[in-house]
Amino acid sequence: MIRAGIIGSTGYAGAEIVRLLLGHKETEIKWYGSRSYIDKKYSSVYQNMFRLVEDVCRDDNMEELAREVDVIFTATPQGLCASLVNEEILSRVKIIDLSADFRIKDPAVYEAWYKIHHPAPELIPEAVYGLCEINREDIKKARLTANPGCYTTCSILSAYPLVKEGLIDGNTLIVDAKSGTSGAGRGAKVDNLFCEVNESIKAYGVATHRHTPEIEEQLSYAAGKPVTISFTPHLVPMNRGILVTAYASLTREAGEEELRAAYEKYYGGEKFIRLLDPEVCPQTRWVEGSNFVDLNIKLDKRTNRVIMMGALDNLVKGAAGQAVQNMNLMFGLPEDMGLQMAPVFP
Amino acid sequence: MIRAGIIGSTGYAGAEIVRLLLGHKETEIKWYGSRSYIDKKYSSVYQNMFRLVEDVCRDDNMEELAREVDVIFTATPQGLCASLVNEEILSRVKIIDLSADFRIKDPAVYEAWYKIHHPAPELIPEAVYGLCEINREDIKKARLTANPGCYTTCSILSAYPLVKEGLIDGNTLIVDAKSGTSGAGRGAKVDNLFCEVNESIKAYGVATHRHTPEIEEQLSYAAGKPVTISFTPHLVPMNRGILVTAYASLTREAGEEELRAAYEKYYGGEKFIRLLDPEVCPQTRWVEGSNFVDLNIKLDKRTNRVIMMGALDNLVKGAAGQAVQNMNLMFGLPEDMGLQMAPVFP
Amino acid sequence: MIRAGIIGSTGYAGAEIVRLLLGHKETEIKWYGSRSYIDKKYSSVYQNMFRLVEDVCRDDNMEELAREVDVIFTATPQGLCASLVNEEILSRVKIIDLSADFRIKDPAVYEAWYKIHHPAPELIPEAVYGLCEINREDIKKARLTANPGCYTTCSILSAYPLVKEGLIDGNTLIVDAKSGTSGAGRGAKVDNLFCEVNESIKAYGVATHRHTPEIEEQLSYAAGKPVTISFTPHLVPMNRGILVTAYASLTREAGEEELRAAYEKYYGGEKFIRLLDPEVCPQTRWVEGSNFVDLNIKLDKRTNRVIMMGALDNLVKGAAGQAVQNMNLMFGLPEDMGLQMAPVFP
Amino acid sequence: MIRAGIIGSTGYAGAEIVRLLLGHKETEIKWYGSRSYIDKKYSSVYQNMFRLVEDVCRDDNMEELAREVDVIFTATPQGLCASLVNEEILSRVKIIDLSADFRIKDPAVYEAWYKIHHPAPELIPEAVYGLCEINREDIKKARLTANPGCYTTCSILSAYPLVKEGLIDGNTLIVDAKSGTSGAGRGAKVDNLFCEVNESIKAYGVATHRHTPEIEEQLSYAAGKPVTISFTPHLVPMNRGILVTAYASLTREAGEEELRAAYEKYYGGEKFIRLLDPEVCPQTRWVEGSNFVDLNIKLDKRTNRVIMMGALDNLVKGAAGQAVQNMNLMFGLPEDMGLQMAPVFP
Repeated sequence: MIRAGIIGSTGYAGAEIVRLLLGHKETEIKWYGSRSYIDKKYSSVYQNMFRLVEDVCRDDNMEELAREVDVIFTATPQGLCASLVNEEILSRVKIIDLSADFRIKDPAVYEAWYKIHHPAPELIPEAVYGLCEINREDIKKARLTANPGCYTTCSILSAYPLVKEGLIDGNTLIVDAKSGTSGAGRGAKVDNLFCEVNESIKAYGVATHRHTPEIEEQLSYAAGKPVTISFTPHLVPMNRGILVTAYASLTREAGEEELRAAYEKYYGGEKFIRLLDPEVCPQTRWVEGSNFVDLNIKLDKRTNRVIMMGALDNLVKGAAGQAVQNMNLMFGLPEDMGLQMAPVFP
Repeated sequence: MIRAGIIGSTGYAGAEIVRLLLGHKETEIKWYGSRSYIDKKYSSVYQNMFRLVEDVCRDDNMEELAREVDVIFTATPQGLCASLVNEEILSRVKIIDLSADFRIKDPAVYEAWYKIHHPAPELIPEAVYGLCEINREDIKKARLTANPGCYTTCSILSAYPLVKEGLIDGNTLIVDAKSGTSGAGRGAKVDNLFCEVNESIKAYGVATHRHTPEIEEQLSYAAGKPVTISFTPHLVPMNRGILVTAYASLTREAGEEELRAAYEKYYGGEKFIRLLDPEVCPQTRWVEGSNFVDLNIKLDKRTNRVIMMGALDNLVKGAAGQAVQNMNLMFGLPEDMGLQMAPVFP
Repeated sequence: MIRAGIIGSTGYAGAEIVRLLLGHKETEIKWYGSRSYIDKKYSSVYQNMFRLVEDVCRDDNMEELAREVDVIFTATPQGLCASLVNEEILSRVKIIDLSADFRIKDPAVYEAWYKIHHPAPELIPEAVYGLCEINREDIKKARLTANPGCYTTCSILSAYPLVKEGLIDGNTLIVDAKSGTSGAGRGAKVDNLFCEVNESIKAYGVATHRHTPEIEEQLSYAAGKPVTISFTPHLVPMNRGILVTAYASLTREAGEEELRAAYEKYYGGEKFIRLLDPEVCPQTRWVEGSNFVDLNIKLDKRTNRVIMMGALDNLVKGAAGQAVQNMNLMFGLPEDMGLQMAPVFP
Repeated sequence: MIRAGIIGSTGYAGAEIVRLLLGHKETEIKWYGSRSYIDKKYSSVYQNMFRLVEDVCRDDNMEELAREVDVIFTATPQGLCASLVNEEILSRVKIIDLSADFRIKDPAVYEAWYKIHHPAPELIPEAVYGLCEINREDIKKARLTANPGCYTTCSILSAYPLVKEGLIDGNTLIVDAKSGTSGAGRGAKVDNLFCEVNESIKAYGVATHRHTPEIEEQLSYAAGKPVTISFTPHLVPMNRGILVTAYASLTREAGEEELRAAYEKYYGGEKFIRLLDPEVCPQTRWVEGSNFVDLNIKLDKRTNRVIMMGALDNLVKGAAGQAVQNMNLMFGLPEDMGLQMAPVFP
C-alpha cells in the first residue's frame, strides 16, 4: 500500500487527487495538507467527501510528511514546492509537483515568466517532465516529477506528432485554448464569481501566459530546434475541460491520411489518447471526469494549414489524473490503475 | 458474470446504466438496445464511450434478449416494458424496469395519471417497488423490479422516517422539487434547448405531475393510512441533480434531536444515505455522479413545521445507480458493487 | 432634470440603477458612490459602461450629496443608510433606500432578525414601504422610501390578492423561493464562485432568512391580522431572476376563476404585473431585464390548496427597477418612465 | 412612422428584431411572419412579449407584405429571401435580408459554400453589404441590404483597420471565433439541447464554415487583393455573444501604438465600436443586449504577430441590431435610433 500525502489538498486540483486516490486500490492518503484549513475536517471543506474522508487538514510540513509517506503531491502555487524540497527529502520520498517549479529546465526562463526567484535550481536537472505518453521511461525512474500544466498537456499532445515528424513548422504554431473555470482555482476573487464568468467568454494573459514557455520547451525537444509559438488562453463558463484549437502550416505537401498516421505512430498504443474518427471534433463533455485526451485534425487545403484539436478534463489528465498516472509509473504499478473510469455525460 | 441487456440504452438514463456497468466487475453488457439508432455504433451516439464500447445498437426484441442475458434494464417511456414482458420472459430473465409501468399497485391510478391503458396488470402484484433502503428484502427475491422515479426517490427518502414514525401529518406534506435538465430526456424539443433552459427556472406539471401518486402510495404504506400531498417539480439550468425541499406540520411537539433520531433509526446503517450535520443544507453538487442521497432537516418552531431537504443525482440514485443497486440485491452481490465512486466536484 | 446620487453604485443593484437611469430621460446621475473604488473610473469597474459613463467613483458623503442632488439611492448593506440619514438631510433630498433599514416598522423585529442595533428608529414611522402597486399613494408623498427586498416583492405580490380577499389562510402559507446568483452580491466569497454555484442548487437560510418578517408584516396588513409563514430561499445557477412557488390552503371553497378574479381586482390596471393565461407557468427568462412580474395560480382540488407562482428579475423589479418606479412616483413623473424595456430573451 | 414586416419573426434573430423595434419610436411592426406558427399569438411563442404584442403570426407572403409595409426584414434560412424578392417588390419596399443570399457577390462562391442554386443572381449586384461602419454611404441609398453574418461582423471589424492599412498580411490571418448558442437557432435538434451544450465547448464546421468566404470577400476589398483565411467557429455554453480572437503576422515592424492608431483612424467616430484601453480584453458580457462591438489588440513581439480581439452580441450587432442600424440609414433616421440601450450586466 502506497502512503500518499497531499500538500494543497483543498484546492480544486488537490481535491481531485483525493477523489482519484479514494478509488485507487493500492494507495492510502495519510496527510491532507491545507494551510487555509488546518484542523478543520476535510469533509467540511469538500462536503462531497462527507463520510468518505474522516481526516482533518494539516499544515504543510514536508519534513514530517517525508517520514510518514511514500509519495507527496504538491498541488500548490509556484514557488512552494521548490522552497521545501531538498536532497534529504528526496532520499526518502517521491515527489510529484503539480506546480510549475520543476517544469522548465532553464531557471532564467522560469524567473522571466513567473517573476519569482527559483529557490532550488540545483534540483531542476534531475526533475522529469511528467508527460507520461512522451517521457514514460524517464518517469519510471524519477524521484521528482514535474506534473505538466493543464493547457500544456493538451497543447503539446495535440501538436507533438506533427512537430516530431517535421510535418508542421513549429514557428507557425498558434494555440488558441479554452478552459473551464476550475482552472482558475478556488480563491475568492471577483473575477471568478458566478455572475462574472457565466454568460461570457474572454481571452486573458494574451501573449504573456506562463504555460507558453513550457509548451515551447517540450515542442522544441520534439522539433530538435527552438520553437516559438503564439498561445492564447480563454475562460469558458463551464466547470471543467480544456479545448485546444491549434493551427500550423505544413512544411510540405501531405494528405490528412499521412497526418493521421503520425498520430497513430506515436499514440497508437496509448490508452488515454483517443484519435477520433475523421470529421469528429473533440468536445470537452466527452472526456469529463476521465483521464482521456481526445484528439483530431483537419487539413485545410485552401490555406495549407492543419487545424489540430484536443480536449481533456483539466482536473484529470490536466492535473490530478496525470499525477496519479505518474505515480503509477514511478511505483511500478499498472499505468491505468485508479484511472479506468469512463467519462461522465451529461 | 451477469449478462445484461439494456432496452433504451441511448437515453440519458440508459447511457448512465452503461457507464455504471462498465465499472461493475461482475457484469457484462450484451445488448445495447435503441430503436432510434439500430445498427449504429453506440460510441457514435455517445462519444464518451469511444473505444470503451465497440457494440452497435440493436432493436428492442425482448424475446431474443431473454434468451441471451440474465437481466434486462428497460429505460424506456411508460407502456413499453409492460407491453413486452410476460410470464415466459420472467421465467428466464430478471427485469428492472425504469419506467413507471410497475410502480403503482392500482392500475386505475396508473391509468388516471398516465392516460394509457396498462397492458399487463396481471404482473403488477408480483413487481417489487425497487426503493432499496425501504424494500431491500423483497427486492432480493424479485423477478420484476419497478425502479422508482427520480423525484420519487428523493421525495420519499426525505420524508419517510418522519411519516413512518408518525411525527408529521402526511396530509400537510408539500414537496417542492427541483431537477436538472437531464431528467427531461434526450428528445429534441424546443423547450429543452440550451437557450430555453439556461438562465431560467420554472415550475411545470403543477398539481398534475405523474410522480405524485407514486410518492403518495409509498408514503401511505409508511403512514399506514392514505396520504395526499402537494408536489411541484421545477426545471433548473443544470445537467444533473434533484433537490427536494419538503414541508410538513408536526403531529406533536418534538425537538430537532428527536426528528434526527428518526432518520438515524431508519438510515443509520445505510451506505448511500448521508444525514448531514445540523445546519448543513444538501446541495446537488455534493452528490453528483454518485449514488448518495444527502438529507437534512430543519425544525421551524415559529410555524411548527419541519423542512426536509434531500439531494441526489437524478441519473444515479434517481435512475441508473438505483437500478444497479437493485441488480446487486437481486443477484446476491454486495449492494454497493460498482457504486463506490465518490461524487465528482466541481 | 432630476439629479441623482447613488451610494453603493458598484454593487450589482447599484449598477443596475446606473443602467436604468442612463435610459431615463428626466434623470442625470451626479454621484457614483463606491467606498471600495474611490477615485477609480466607474467604467473600469463595470466595463459595459465604457464610453457611457466617464465619472469616477466617490466616497459615501451623504451630507455633501444632499446638497448636490435631488434623490439619493442607497444600495448598500443594512445599517448604512440608517446611520447616515437624518431630518436635516431629509429636508433637502429624497431618499430611496434599497437596504432593509426602513422596511420593518417594529425596530425590535428588525434587530432580532438582522442582529444589529437600529441607528435611527425615529425615522421609521415616516418611511414608506415602496411596493408601488400596493402603496402607490403613500409613496407619492414620501421623503424616505424603503425599497422592498427582491424575494419580498415577488412573494408578496404573488399572494397579496388572495390574502387580502381572505381566500387563503395566511398561516398556511409556504413560500419556496428560488433566486439567481446576482442576489448574493458582488463580494468575493468562495460560496459564490462560478464552480461552486454552477451545476448545483441548494436551500439556505432555512427558517431564518431576513426577508421573512418583511413578507409577514406586509401580508399581515393585507390580512388584517398577524400572519406567520414559512419561507425558504434557494440559490440557482443563473445570473438573474426570482421564482416564487407558494402554497396555501383555501379558507372556503372557491374555483380557479374566482381566485383569478382576485388578481384582476388588484392588478387589473397594473402595467408591470402580468397575470398569465391559465396553465401558463411563470418563468424567469420571460421577465429578464424588465420591470415585469409574471404571476399565475393553480388550484389543486385534491389538496384544497392553491399554488401561487411569481417571477421577476431580482435586479429590476426586485431592486433597481422598483427603485426607479418609486422615484417616478415621488417626483410626479409617469410611473413607467425609463422602465418600458421589453424583457430580453434569450 | 415606418411600417415594418418581419419574415421569420419567431426565430431568435427575428424575435430580437421585434424586441428592438418595440423600443424604436419611428417604427411600427405590421406583420409578424412565421410559417411555423401561422395564426398563433406571437406572445404565446415568445412569452416575454405577453401584453406587449397582441398580433398573431402570419404566413410569408412577400407580395402582400410589400403592399402593406415600408421595410421587410427577412430573418430566414438562406435561399428564401432570394426566392421571393424581385424587381417589382423592390420597387415598393426596402428589404433587409439577414440571410446569406445577397452577401456574396459571386454566385459561384455562394453556391459552392451553401450547396444551393441562387434563385435571383440578377439582384446581387445592387445589393449592398450592410456592414454599417464600412459601407455607410452605400447603405443609405440601398433598396436591398444584405445584413452581415454574426461571426462575419465580428471578424471583419476586428481585422479591418490593419488589413486596410496593409499592416498585416491577410493570408496569415487566422480567426478563432466563439459563439453563444442562440447562434444555432431555435430549431429542435439534439445537438442544441441544454445537456449537450452545457458544460462543453467544441469547434465545428472546421475549414468549411460558410461565413469564411464572406469574411474573405470583405477583407479582400480592404486589402485590395485576394485574401484567404482560416476560420474556426466554436460553440460556447452561453446564450449570447461572439468573441473573436484573430492572429496575423505584421507586414513590417510596427508598435502597438501605431496599430491602435489604425483603429482610431477608421473607428474613432463610430458610436458602436469601442476600442478598449490597452491591456483590457473584450468580454462578451460587457456588450450583451447592446449594439456595441468591443475591440482590442495585443502585439506579440516574440512572434511578430498581432492578436486582434472582438466581442459583440450575436443577436444585436451580429443580427437584429445591425439590421435596425441599416434600416435607420436607409430611411434617413439617426443611425442609433432604438439602439441606445446600455449593455445588460450581469
